[in-house]
Amino acid sequence: MPHISVDDHLPGITGLLEYRRDSATPIRELTQLLLRGPNTLTEAERELIATVVSSGNQCRFCTAAHAATADALLGECQTSACVLTDIETAPVSEKTKALLQIAQQVRQGGKAVTAVVVERARRAGATDFEIHDTVLIAALFCLYNRYVDGLATVAPAEPGFYEKLAGRLVQNGYNRLPQGYDHLRKP
Amino acid sequence: MPHISVDDHLPGITGLLEYRRDSATPIRELTQLLLRGPNTLTEAERELIATVVSSGNQCRFCTAAHAATADALLGECQTSACVLTDIETAPVSEKTKALLQIAQQVRQGGKAVTAVVVERARRAGATDFEIHDTVLIAALFCLYNRYVDGLATVAPAEPGFYEKLAGRLVQNGYNRLPQGYDHLRKP
Repeated sequence: MPHISVDDHLPGITGLLEYRRDSATPIRELTQLLLRGPNTLTEAERELIATVVSSGNQCRFCTAAHAATADALLGECQTSACVLTDIETAPVSEKTKALLQIAQQVRQGGKAVTAVVVERARRAGATDFEIHDTVLIAALFCLYNRYVDGLATVAPAEPGFYEKLAGRLVQNGYNRLPQGYDHLRKP
Repeated sequence: MPHISVDDHLPGITGLLEYRRDSATPIRELTQLLLRGPNTLTEAERELIATVVSSGNQCRFCTAAHAATADALLGECQTSACVLTDIETAPVSEKTKALLQIAQQVRQGGKAVTAVVVERARRAGATDFEIHDTVLIAALFCLYNRYVDGLATVAPAEPGFYEKLAGRLVQNGYNRLPQGYDHLRKP
């Protein structure tokens, strides 16, 4: 049971974003910019960063939501499953592996990020901007995971819930649609 | 040396917020709302939450900046020093102690927050809104600390730097002043 009174019909982050809509607005905007804004990292790569961080933080809701979103973007579910098992043998580029390792270190703590892993990413072609965004996306999901689990929100057990949510996040992104635009949402 | 190329004259978070101003905008807005917006928690109490989380995450820049800001708001530096040593014997209310303990648990991880500590806060008079904001502020500083240290930004050694920064954060808050309004900034 959540530690505070949130709408029963809105599990995980969804109830929290409705609980305090004014703080939800900049959280949504930051997420939209980092995960859907113009970037040399693909949307799927950015969702994989969110997924590995959430998994490391043992946040069931966020892990399932962002793995499903990466799957929807990639059109397959092997990559996210492999990344969650072992980054080094996953079917992603050397640059993505290095960036996912940076994300894992950020998750452990800012001081855990080593010059060695940053240099590995750079040798694989990562730019300053990509390294910056990897660190900030990983840090953002450390916020989300703590927000979602720190208030003991509910994580639905049915995979169908996350597939539907992922469909919405692929089609509409992270911003809240204005009232009256509900017909634009995926059912 | 920072992992990415930031302005040498802007240490800690300040250089990162200038590095990518578009992502800085919602981060600043969220911080302004949570730390300076209308709230039954005082600004000093909210800065103390930021301080204990940053200290637990061993983020020198954020700990010094927010301890100095709490000190400036309180007009004394005993409270922040005591809170950083031992929350339970610090000269703050029972409600504040309980909320600071929640913040410490959030720092460790969302799942570390116990029903016991939430119930303690509630018995001391904390509302759902205050518990929500404590969790979200603590989570936000888990983002900041990882952003600042994950990119290996520099933390000035001189206390004077943080006192000046605290003065600006008390007077102007967390939003970036528009260009042409620099005369409103504290020197």
